[in-house]
Amino acid sequence: MIKPFALSCGDPAGIGPEIICKSWQARESNDLKPFFAIGNVEDFKQADSNGICGIPVVKISTPAEAADHFDKALPVLHIYDGPPTISGEPSLDGAQCALHALEIACGLARSGDAGAVVTAPVSKSQLYKVGFRYPGQTEFVSERCGIARQNAVMMLAGPSLRVIPMTTHIALKEVPLQLTRRLIIARAKVAHKAMIRNFGITNPRIAVAALNPHAGEDGNIGDEEQLVMIPAIEKLVAEGLDVKGPYPADSMFHEEARSQYDVALCPYHDQALIPLKALHFFDGVNITLGLPIIRTSPDHGTAFAIAGQGRADPRSMIAAIKMAEVAAVNREKYSNRKKAAL
Amino acid sequence: MIKPFALSCGDPAGIGPEIICKSWQARESNDLKPFFAIGNVEDFKQADSNGICGIPVVKISTPAEAADHFDKALPVLHIYDGPPTISGEPSLDGAQCALHALEIACGLARSGDAGAVVTAPVSKSQLYKVGFRYPGQTEFVSERCGIARQNAVMMLAGPSLRVIPMTTHIALKEVPLQLTRRLIIARAKVAHKAMIRNFGITNPRIAVAALNPHAGEDGNIGDEEQLVMIPAIEKLVAEGLDVKGPYPADSMFHEEARSQYDVALCPYHDQALIPLKALHFFDGVNITLGLPIIRTSPDHGTAFAIAGQGRADPRSMIAAIKMAEVAAVNREKYSNRKKAAL
Repeated sequence: MIKPFALSCGDPAGIGPEIICKSWQARESNDLKPFFAIGNVEDFKQADSNGICGIPVVKISTPAEAADHFDKALPVLHIYDGPPTISGEPSLDGAQCALHALEIACGLARSGDAGAVVTAPVSKSQLYKVGFRYPGQTEFVSERCGIARQNAVMMLAGPSLRVIPMTTHIALKEVPLQLTRRLIIARAKVAHKAMIRNFGITNPRIAVAALNPHAGEDGNIGDEEQLVMIPAIEKLVAEGLDVKGPYPADSMFHEEARSQYDVALCPYHDQALIPLKALHFFDGVNITLGLPIIRTSPDHGTAFAIAGQGRADPRSMIAAIKMAEVAAVNREKYSNRKKAAL
Repeated sequence: MIKPFALSCGDPAGIGPEIICKSWQARESNDLKPFFAIGNVEDFKQADSNGICGIPVVKISTPAEAADHFDKALPVLHIYDGPPTISGEPSLDGAQCALHALEIACGLARSGDAGAVVTAPVSKSQLYKVGFRYPGQTEFVSERCGIARQNAVMMLAGPSLRVIPMTTHIALKEVPLQLTRRLIIARAKVAHKAMIRNFGITNPRIAVAALNPHAGEDGNIGDEEQLVMIPAIEKLVAEGLDVKGPYPADSMFHEEARSQYDVALCPYHDQALIPLKALHFFDGVNITLGLPIIRTSPDHGTAFAIAGQGRADPRSMIAAIKMAEVAAVNREKYSNRKKAAL
């Protein structure tokens, strides 16, 4: 039995409340299972009353109430008292509300009261003003789950492509230094296990993108493939994982190439996110692998510039909810299989 | 009056002859203007007689004969005597033939007897065995045109995207060192002029991709945007060019973003080629900008592994011929406007 999902409001001055309201509106056409928002109920009423959505909102006190209301109104777990946030005008109140919502969403997923956490976008610079000390929501969530940062892995996924950047928000010049055998092996193992648990793929096929153009042309254009990547891949293969590469990254992302693997591991941020966003800009999802809980998020920012205008596109948020559902169903099956095997 | 185009055979053990024959077969459906192949006529008869294409081939002695024969047979300027090449088995004879064909194609374009050069793929390692001393065909062609290598610019283009990698076949760790203000300014100026001359775009819009993820987040993730890229862009803007950026590269390549510029300048190879090939794997074209002649090529290699099997896809070669036609027409108009203005 899958529990309702917790959707943290994100920065309420951004498009978070709007895309949550629009996702609720689209619940039937997308066959969405019950979820509830976490935040200041006034921000959701506002998203309602300013004509963006015009949806009914119901204040709930516990996640268990969500399912009863979900077909008639958006359930909101009210966790922050304060005036409604003004769209497009980030404030300390809004940042504090975003942080509380994230904290409570994690707690409810850890306690089992929520089936997954779906996080709306936050503004990191705003959060830093209210005491947040993490590179992003991913690291916060992993700490709340007792998982070391290096073992919580960001994956971006769209309908036709899943990618994992093995390094994330670092300068390009740091990438060759941080790309170690140990990192590749760790990322591949988390990816392998997560494909099985969250996506029900029995023998996940992992493709590794080369660091250098043309995969280094046998060491003529950079030697990291020879020194770091190939030894790491050989070790993974020896342990029984289906890992191939390193492949020239530019030939990995056309339709035929994509059909050859379940997930692509890329040495750096842009190598992974360029193809993902070129192909799936509006329906890409961020999912954190390696956690005991399910955590997804839309693959975009707060979009303060268009907040409150009714123009926000909810497709990525809806895709994030759907991906959490897929993961929840597969994890339940996986756990039942494990129990049956005992 | 546009002269027939010269198509160099490339390595005849690769798919070059086959995709040239298939392009000739598709001349009517693609409304292709007359062209001729350059190579060993036996290799084209072979591509004919082994059942790959079954097309008529006619040996010509000068480019001027091409137009008369083009509607009935593929004209081949026979420049290398030797036995027919065996598909998939690269040989010194084949490499020598490829090199001669390239040399003669350039000469004919320089003399004005050919309207453009379209080069089929070569094997660099094979060419090196017969005395070739260039990183690739692009550098060879630019030398034959008296253009310094750094001023001949590789652009990759598909129906919905044009990209220029500002650095090309170097190790990723070299990229931050080679990305200078001077380089960005030089590339942007060649791009600007080439968009006008070859594509008839009056005020070319140039978008520059950032080196670092999220465009460096104001210097927090790498400082090359602040120190190198922004000053270069400001200088270009001061000179009247429409250059914008640096933009986070992962948000530059979805459909809506692509509609905002005519060409994207990217700091490194994979950043440019990943989106191009993800979107246009089968119809991407390589065009060299900054030359007095027109030179295009399909955006793939010799494909020795599938040569001689009739499986080669000619779409990229056909697109390369069509792009050369577009450039030829626009250059003629440009030159007429310049004459009229005198």
